[in-house]
Amino acid sequence: MATLDSTLSNFVGEGRALDADAKGARATSFWNSSPMQAKAMLLPSSADEVAQILGHCNSTGQSVITQGGLTNCVTAAEPGLDDVVISTEKMASIVEIDKVGGTAVVEAGAVLQNVQEAVAREGMYFPLDMGARGSCTIGGNIATNAGGINVLRYGMTRNLVLGLEAVMADGTVMSSMNRMLKNNAGYDMKQLFIGSEGTLGVVTRAVLRLYPQPASRQDALVAMTSVDAVIGFLGKLQREIAGNLSAFEIMWGRYYRAVTGENGHRPPLSRDYPFYVVFTAEGSDPDADAACFERVLEQAFEEKLIIDAVMPKSAAETRAIWEIRENFEPALVNPPFYLYDISLPIRDMQAYVAEVEANVEKRWNGAMCITLGHMADGNLHFFVAPGEQGDFHEDSDRCVYDPLRQYGGSVSAEHGIGLEKLSWLPHSKSAAEIELMRSLKRTLDPNGILNPGRVVGD
Amino acid sequence: MATLDSTLSNFVGEGRALDADAKGARATSFWNSSPMQAKAMLLPSSADEVAQILGHCNSTGQSVITQGGLTNCVTAAEPGLDDVVISTEKMASIVEIDKVGGTAVVEAGAVLQNVQEAVAREGMYFPLDMGARGSCTIGGNIATNAGGINVLRYGMTRNLVLGLEAVMADGTVMSSMNRMLKNNAGYDMKQLFIGSEGTLGVVTRAVLRLYPQPASRQDALVAMTSVDAVIGFLGKLQREIAGNLSAFEIMWGRYYRAVTGENGHRPPLSRDYPFYVVFTAEGSDPDADAACFERVLEQAFEEKLIIDAVMPKSAAETRAIWEIRENFEPALVNPPFYLYDISLPIRDMQAYVAEVEANVEKRWNGAMCITLGHMADGNLHFFVAPGEQGDFHEDSDRCVYDPLRQYGGSVSAEHGIGLEKLSWLPHSKSAAEIELMRSLKRTLDPNGILNPGRVVGD
Repeated sequence: MATLDSTLSNFVGEGRALDADAKGARATSFWNSSPMQAKAMLLPSSADEVAQILGHCNSTGQSVITQGGLTNCVTAAEPGLDDVVISTEKMASIVEIDKVGGTAVVEAGAVLQNVQEAVAREGMYFPLDMGARGSCTIGGNIATNAGGINVLRYGMTRNLVLGLEAVMADGTVMSSMNRMLKNNAGYDMKQLFIGSEGTLGVVTRAVLRLYPQPASRQDALVAMTSVDAVIGFLGKLQREIAGNLSAFEIMWGRYYRAVTGENGHRPPLSRDYPFYVVFTAEGSDPDADAACFERVLEQAFEEKLIIDAVMPKSAAETRAIWEIRENFEPALVNPPFYLYDISLPIRDMQAYVAEVEANVEKRWNGAMCITLGHMADGNLHFFVAPGEQGDFHEDSDRCVYDPLRQYGGSVSAEHGIGLEKLSWLPHSKSAAEIELMRSLKRTLDPNGILNPGRVVGD
Repeated sequence: MATLDSTLSNFVGEGRALDADAKGARATSFWNSSPMQAKAMLLPSSADEVAQILGHCNSTGQSVITQGGLTNCVTAAEPGLDDVVISTEKMASIVEIDKVGGTAVVEAGAVLQNVQEAVAREGMYFPLDMGARGSCTIGGNIATNAGGINVLRYGMTRNLVLGLEAVMADGTVMSSMNRMLKNNAGYDMKQLFIGSEGTLGVVTRAVLRLYPQPASRQDALVAMTSVDAVIGFLGKLQREIAGNLSAFEIMWGRYYRAVTGENGHRPPLSRDYPFYVVFTAEGSDPDADAACFERVLEQAFEEKLIIDAVMPKSAAETRAIWEIRENFEPALVNPPFYLYDISLPIRDMQAYVAEVEANVEKRWNGAMCITLGHMADGNLHFFVAPGEQGDFHEDSDRCVYDPLRQYGGSVSAEHGIGLEKLSWLPHSKSAAEIELMRSLKRTLDPNGILNPGRVVGD
């Protein structure tokens, strides 16, 4: 096994350069429990330390994998034996919260939930949210332009980042720590580092946009008989709850049945409906908001958009209906599973899902395809379970991606491309776009040391 | 005068290549009524025609200036005698409006107001809005990442563009016409063309994000005695009107007095107050929204945040209070005037404005500095009027920009850099950022033909 480069270990503090044995005690990722493999793992504590590391790696052609909370879904952060790992875990400070300006300055290694909670203690709100909140880091959120459950109202991570600091491949520290909502002084350099999955630079710090904490919140779990009814209900909420609607998550009946029942969550609604939606409204006027929410729900019954509904009466009940959406582990009983994260125009969703289901059923006897997602964002997740042992990843990909192209859909709504989806990138990007991506990669990382092979290939 | 290149005129339809005489009948820009100077003006009708023009210009090193509605504030679109002009005016179609997906496909030359109105006829809402709405084009809005009065709620143009098509310097058509809210399949190439002021490509088409039309709207004009009270009132609205607050515009008393009165607008409130704010809430629940709006206004009186207020009772009255903010012509009686567009953290605004005013008063006897802006976005506009004849642009710039640096402010919140602010770019961007900008420019436009000299210099 390769040994630790002593030059590199000098760039970080005592005990912050882990050799093969030390980092081997860590799992590879959230999804892969085998011991992490890498030449070395460095835990720098500042952008300057990252700059020294990258400067050296750039001059020696040493590949570097940057790691945050290891919840990446597309194997982007899993190192190989010859890679040096930079973990941002020792850069996890929440540096400043400005309530008047509505901004927080945080380091890249800060865990999302810690940021959410620190901001909440100041009476403010950071709306980025997703199931991985307890592990994922702000740096990883930025690198992948993370989405999650509040995109409908607040946008993706890109919309919530006002400024950032990143270290480029040659060790240049690119400080672009803008704190204003508006800044058109020159090209907006931070956009390059958001969503490029660590291939153009290592994000070390960011200025986040905060919102006031909502004074009211209502949630409900409802059931429908058709995708048209779901679309009709979404339209009604967008007109009548409008700016207060912050989450709208669809679950196909098959998903709901797979995660509830004997070995799963307690079902708050009958398990026999074709479609379920869990949604959230957040507002500033508790009485009026609650009245409006209930009125809209009642009308939706009368208009036959929904056929059943439950409104949680406590924080625990709210948590319980969201657990059905967020904790899908009860469905994962018979591996292998393949997870997807596509997006397409909402009007084409029903036809597309039917095609995917048909493809999966045709390919394997006893296969399962369960579907859920951020409907209002045009974003669906699938779990495809062939129901037999074997490596069927490519077959499964074809079932999902082949019908997507005709709708101008994306093979990755929010997870990114990483290594896993590289061969499918041409499904969603034109040759001109891919050539421009490569051209940017060559310009910003001419020696190809940053997360090599990810997103743009080699 | 240089003659029209016949190769170029062959790329566009009959009558769509204007020679020196024909385009000389046009004014240079909204701000400059002298006849436009250029080698030729071409009016292509498609991305393919633009591609042919750029391919030819790229191979011959011919500089190209792209024009939309000519309302640019930083002389970015004013051509010189040796430039070829591409006007997008013949690419002005509104191609498709998808109500379910909440998207509109439009050509770059479509005038903003036409897009707003076409979308409204379908019961939808495109929230980008500014005083220049009747002239400015979507392509120009995208090229400058335009801001305007609804940024607080809906973000800048960047947040409202889901996809775009641009022609690159070498004639490559970069089609990235994504229609989904979420698409993380590879680098987000459209970000390069948004806000780069036409220096990296010519935008020809875009997919815009639409919202449902708000069912309710309330406006008010209020008066305050201090910036602290304005900040306190903004905070109250952000907590208590929250997601419904869509505009919040501050006017210093001096601005209000300059645009109202004998030769100006009728003043709906006394002209003696130190600060005025005009603001808008848009919601989905007319009765509850109106009650909430009035309750918050009453409380703001009781809490001494505001000292006077008027609520318009008709669309005409609403228009009238907004005219005070948007139509500043009554203030512009004694040229020269220099217009600014800075941003800085809200908490530093009061100290900064006092410094600018002191600088202006110290520099010229009888000078006027009037201040207004998108307060909630941290964005202020100044008109500096030295009160004497002469070219004082640089002196005036120093009065405004010198105190800005210490606050990490931006010399351009929304207007861009163009040619006018080029020398001030290092005030708001680090050397590393500027070098990266240049590196991008070299990569995407190696012969420097696109809007040469703008934003990144030569």
